[in-house]
Amino acid sequence: MFKASLRDPKLLKHSIDAISNMVDEVGINVTAEGMTMRAMDPAHVALVDFELKRSAFDEYEVGEAIVLGIDLDRLNTILKRAGKEDKINLEVDPEKNTLKIRLENASTRTFNLPLIEVSEEELKVPDLDFPSTVEIKSDIISEGIKDAEIVSDHVILEVDKENFYIKAKGDLGNVEVKASKEGAISFDVTQDTRSMYSLEYLKDMIKASDIADTVKISLGDNIPVKMEFLSSDVKLSFLLAPRIESE
Amino acid sequence: MFKASLRDPKLLKHSIDAISNMVDEVGINVTAEGMTMRAMDPAHVALVDFELKRSAFDEYEVGEAIVLGIDLDRLNTILKRAGKEDKINLEVDPEKNTLKIRLENASTRTFNLPLIEVSEEELKVPDLDFPSTVEIKSDIISEGIKDAEIVSDHVILEVDKENFYIKAKGDLGNVEVKASKEGAISFDVTQDTRSMYSLEYLKDMIKASDIADTVKISLGDNIPVKMEFLSSDVKLSFLLAPRIESE
Amino acid sequence: MFKASLRDPKLLKHSIDAISNMVDEVGINVTAEGMTMRAMDPAHVALVDFELKRSAFDEYEVGEAIVLGIDLDRLNTILKRAGKEDKINLEVDPEKNTLKIRLENASTRTFNLPLIEVSEEELKVPDLDFPSTVEIKSDIISEGIKDAEIVSDHVILEVDKENFYIKAKGDLGNVEVKASKEGAISFDVTQDTRSMYSLEYLKDMIKASDIADTVKISLGDNIPVKMEFLSSDVKLSFLLAPRIESE
Repeated sequence: MFKASLRDPKLLKHSIDAISNMVDEVGINVTAEGMTMRAMDPAHVALVDFELKRSAFDEYEVGEAIVLGIDLDRLNTILKRAGKEDKINLEVDPEKNTLKIRLENASTRTFNLPLIEVSEEELKVPDLDFPSTVEIKSDIISEGIKDAEIVSDHVILEVDKENFYIKAKGDLGNVEVKASKEGAISFDVTQDTRSMYSLEYLKDMIKASDIADTVKISLGDNIPVKMEFLSSDVKLSFLLAPRIESE
Repeated sequence: MFKASLRDPKLLKHSIDAISNMVDEVGINVTAEGMTMRAMDPAHVALVDFELKRSAFDEYEVGEAIVLGIDLDRLNTILKRAGKEDKINLEVDPEKNTLKIRLENASTRTFNLPLIEVSEEELKVPDLDFPSTVEIKSDIISEGIKDAEIVSDHVILEVDKENFYIKAKGDLGNVEVKASKEGAISFDVTQDTRSMYSLEYLKDMIKASDIADTVKISLGDNIPVKMEFLSSDVKLSFLLAPRIESE
Repeated sequence: MFKASLRDPKLLKHSIDAISNMVDEVGINVTAEGMTMRAMDPAHVALVDFELKRSAFDEYEVGEAIVLGIDLDRLNTILKRAGKEDKINLEVDPEKNTLKIRLENASTRTFNLPLIEVSEEELKVPDLDFPSTVEIKSDIISEGIKDAEIVSDHVILEVDKENFYIKAKGDLGNVEVKASKEGAISFDVTQDTRSMYSLEYLKDMIKASDIADTVKISLGDNIPVKMEFLSSDVKLSFLLAPRIESE
């Protein structure tokens, strides 16, 4: 049994929009604490960790913890139909084996999303030791990634004692975005670090900047980057493997 | 002789936008009461009935009643150039056999639309007996049709004693939009009815929701649906033949 | 040495957007008076004359006058990334032979545009004697050109003692945009004139209407038209060769 009513539609809408290009099918865990999902893209380059907390919901009833097998593309198509003022209700229909998504406003619009089989093995999040963590406004990363896209398809994330950098280089010239320690929400850097990442993944990930004002970025040398979009009700965190910098 | 000046450009603009995908060429009747047009799409699936009343015009002069042969695609292309604040003037040039469409604002922009030959036989609107008629906000039908499009290319319109429904079913899951009797402007249902229609036509028809706040929907079992977008100055009504529901 | 900081990003942004489709590579002259550029399109149909005055800049330092060889497409791609509130800083890096474009806001975003070799021969602006000059609101020309595009790919610019006209004729009908002497900012017509021009060029040129409220149009019979978008800080002027009117 699962029945829930979401206060702010954009939390689910923009999170699924950020994830659905990377991951096709996923098991969403529903427990008394909220909804969580952890998934890897097919190429094993990115790991997504998503939590929509119970506090995000106006109503929330769940019996035993369950796993909902979801086709994220289909879910994304449905959630794109939700208006800003629509209340989103979720309910599992165990007989039809569907997730009912009900958008309530002047009318009641119900979408029945068929649940699918998914493997239930738990993905482990690798235990990484990040020498540096900075928290900045999420639109800095979002605009910076779009800047980098005009010259390249990969990007270097770098940090030193004073600044966090997004750097890209291509035939068109090079781009450097600099966010200073002074402008950061938090800035905890123990050593200079630098790694290269694929923009293909990053440009999906930055769609999550709509759900949180700030992003926490954890970095090291040639190790994955962790980007956490955090607000009181939702946590969307990505771990992205580095590329080898050939130059 | 025909010369007229339209107060609100959007009435003509959005009506022609809703009609022009369905009907290529049409005869618009111009009489002392206003402009009317009745047309059928080439596949004989949809019938359009349009009236722009004399009251919609600031100035309106017509001699003998005339029929203007219009290529609706061309007219639509011209009307899309009209801004919200532009005053639309219409005038027949009998010598050049054109309809002069003059948009007045800071400049005067005149488009000369060549008139074409059209058959003048009057289309009869079939006399249908609808067991149910509901009037609802036009954005409910407009959003509901867009919802249905994500799963199917046809849709079921249904009504019972309590609700009006838009239903669609496809591989992606199914969609049900429900508008309750309580939320309706009027709700006159003598029996439960259900018919299936093509979304291809409906998605053009709902463009008319910009000209009227409400839509009157008349329904029966496996008979055409009538959708009337009504305001004090304009009446745009569609009759759409049902599809055979195979399931 | 060149270092400057631009107050209003849109002056440079929209000017380059208007020019970059016509001209690929250009030498921008930087002197104590400001930045100027003069260029011809490869087909020698249009000549562009651009000046961004020193007064447009908050800071402006230049040593000897220099010429910056610029790939306008690349510069345009970079300037499109500038937000309305971004401060644009320009600086030549003589070692790397690049123009550094720095967008300052919450973060500092630096784009390094490689400078290219360009011929430094000065283009002469032909000395034309225009019998008529009118100055009108720039959105009249901008909307009028878009009106003409729906019927043709060339346009006639015409002026008589009372009005300035944009005329186009095609299979779809014809279009005439009329701006009266009364509505003009200035209207200096010594004789009726008429010439035909290519819309392909005009539709790029009208992008400049975002930098100036008015445009000064100088005309004659079958001679080039001059369009000057003028504001206190910027001057963007186009000279466009006529087409032969076959009719």
